[in-house]
Amino acid sequence: MAELRREPVTRMWVVVTNDHPKGPSDYLHFKPPYQSQEGEGPCPFCPGNEGMTPQEVFSLGREEGGWSVRVIPNKFPFFHIEGDFDRRPEGMYDVMEAIGAHEIVVEASEHKQSLAFMEPHQIKRILLAYRSRAIDLEKDQRFQQFVILKNYPGLFNRHPHSHIMAMPVVPRRMDEEIYGTLDYYHRKERCIFCDIVKEEISAKKRVILETVHFLIFTPYASRYPFETWVIPKVHSPDFHHIREEEMEDLSGAIQSLFLRFYKLLSDPPYSFTFHTSPIQSRFHRSEYHWHIETRLRIGLREGFEWGTDFYVNPTPPEAAAAYLREIE
Amino acid sequence: MAELRREPVTRMWVVVTNDHPKGPSDYLHFKPPYQSQEGEGPCPFCPGNEGMTPQEVFSLGREEGGWSVRVIPNKFPFFHIEGDFDRRPEGMYDVMEAIGAHEIVVEASEHKQSLAFMEPHQIKRILLAYRSRAIDLEKDQRFQQFVILKNYPGLFNRHPHSHIMAMPVVPRRMDEEIYGTLDYYHRKERCIFCDIVKEEISAKKRVILETVHFLIFTPYASRYPFETWVIPKVHSPDFHHIREEEMEDLSGAIQSLFLRFYKLLSDPPYSFTFHTSPIQSRFHRSEYHWHIETRLRIGLREGFEWGTDFYVNPTPPEAAAAYLREIE
Repeated sequence: MAELRREPVTRMWVVVTNDHPKGPSDYLHFKPPYQSQEGEGPCPFCPGNEGMTPQEVFSLGREEGGWSVRVIPNKFPFFHIEGDFDRRPEGMYDVMEAIGAHEIVVEASEHKQSLAFMEPHQIKRILLAYRSRAIDLEKDQRFQQFVILKNYPGLFNRHPHSHIMAMPVVPRRMDEEIYGTLDYYHRKERCIFCDIVKEEISAKKRVILETVHFLIFTPYASRYPFETWVIPKVHSPDFHHIREEEMEDLSGAIQSLFLRFYKLLSDPPYSFTFHTSPIQSRFHRSEYHWHIETRLRIGLREGFEWGTDFYVNPTPPEAAAAYLREIE
Repeated sequence: MAELRREPVTRMWVVVTNDHPKGPSDYLHFKPPYQSQEGEGPCPFCPGNEGMTPQEVFSLGREEGGWSVRVIPNKFPFFHIEGDFDRRPEGMYDVMEAIGAHEIVVEASEHKQSLAFMEPHQIKRILLAYRSRAIDLEKDQRFQQFVILKNYPGLFNRHPHSHIMAMPVVPRRMDEEIYGTLDYYHRKERCIFCDIVKEEISAKKRVILETVHFLIFTPYASRYPFETWVIPKVHSPDFHHIREEEMEDLSGAIQSLFLRFYKLLSDPPYSFTFHTSPIQSRFHRSEYHWHIETRLRIGLREGFEWGTDFYVNPTPPEAAAAYLREIE
């Protein structure tokens, strides 16, 4: 039989099948061929080719002559930094210019490198770059949402990198989360994510890893097989207020999680997104709780999810958590 | 530059890039390898192998000794027809049994057949099967939403087939549409989809094909390259009230659309979904307007869309419509 589980924040129903649950081996043949799109020429993210990229906006390690992490504007941005919105009607519709920021974080100097095998101190440098750019970009009053996002492997370049975007509108997913957290707060005067952290620590069965500051778990209504969230255990609305020691703790947790994915599913393709409080909604300090959502790009069912926004997950999160907990 | 266009029904923003718009040739190398999952044994949907499937619930052409269309319960359903919901809490969460119907429409007796090359009278038989099952399943008071859905090629079997589902909850996508149409109706006392039909017929530039009863067009805020909607020109909330002559007209329109996709993008993989009024919301007769949404499964950007529910479309719908209009 299958269950309908309700995602408590957005209140979306997810079908979780229990009768023939799929394990890691069922996904090994289902990887989309994302690897194949890398270009032929020299890699613009490798040391020595810095001239191929726009002027860097942040780097670490320059004092030693090279760099260990670099942030550059994206040459092919979704959002453009200059101009004004020019909000206008077009017939019955609404349109504006896509103003925003779109930067690339080059995560290491080595072309072949993955979070699974990176030293935690290098992951911490990436987090430092994220934090620094968040603090800077959030000063721009035109932006409403800051998003950090990674696709592994990169769709057009395998050199490890992630995306930083500042957007002029709150994306739908974050908007729904805000709506859900506010509604919960009004009913209970508690942050729903804080309640989820408590629930998961007490239920145990969906926990992969618990560190001093973070909980890593598979959410109750996981939309995807092996969907995993990383969340600070103590209430914290904005990623960019993360403290030094929390970053150190998080770096080790991230490395451990991606090593587990690597071992369990044989280097699966994945994406992650940082969910942090919208910039212009900083009055929502009690309700929102930043976290990282991770999805493996495995499995096939696309048409149903696309057509209905209704998800079917053939790997119960309790099973996924057990696999990931025990792999080490 | 890129534009942010607002989808008028769900009010979701979509980034449409205009500076380096992608044409059909940019997508030819990006097809995911869905073809590869077909099993080795005999096809359960081929004539002669009817014993491999559950008992059929509908068929056409039996009077001639064979069948031209068959509907059978899915052997691996997302939703189960028997049992009760057993709604209950689990810790802080909500869960119920996934009760519903999940049937397969075998669209033709030939194993290799596609809508692009099917005779319109065979497509009409498929529509007759959809309508008949809709009328039957909607009598069951436990169900809230009826969904027709097709993946081409089939993920696990290439024999042409589609899915019919009756669900105990309204999927999020339809829920958002209902919310948007109600809001619009309250402001204007008009159906938003009727207004879209009028707008598109007058603007012309996103129209692919107009028949006596249907409009086929690329929506203003298309989330996907070559996204296409098929909509009745006259207000009609429910698919299952479609009349004989409308079905005939629609059959020809569907064949023409999928032949255009085939020619333009070299037999691309696609999915479509019928959006029809929720079953238990039949008081929304003035606001909802049934239609078919079609997406080609081409292109690569997954992480961003998944992480944010924010879509980037590198092929402006005006360009997509021009390509599809002119291909014939």
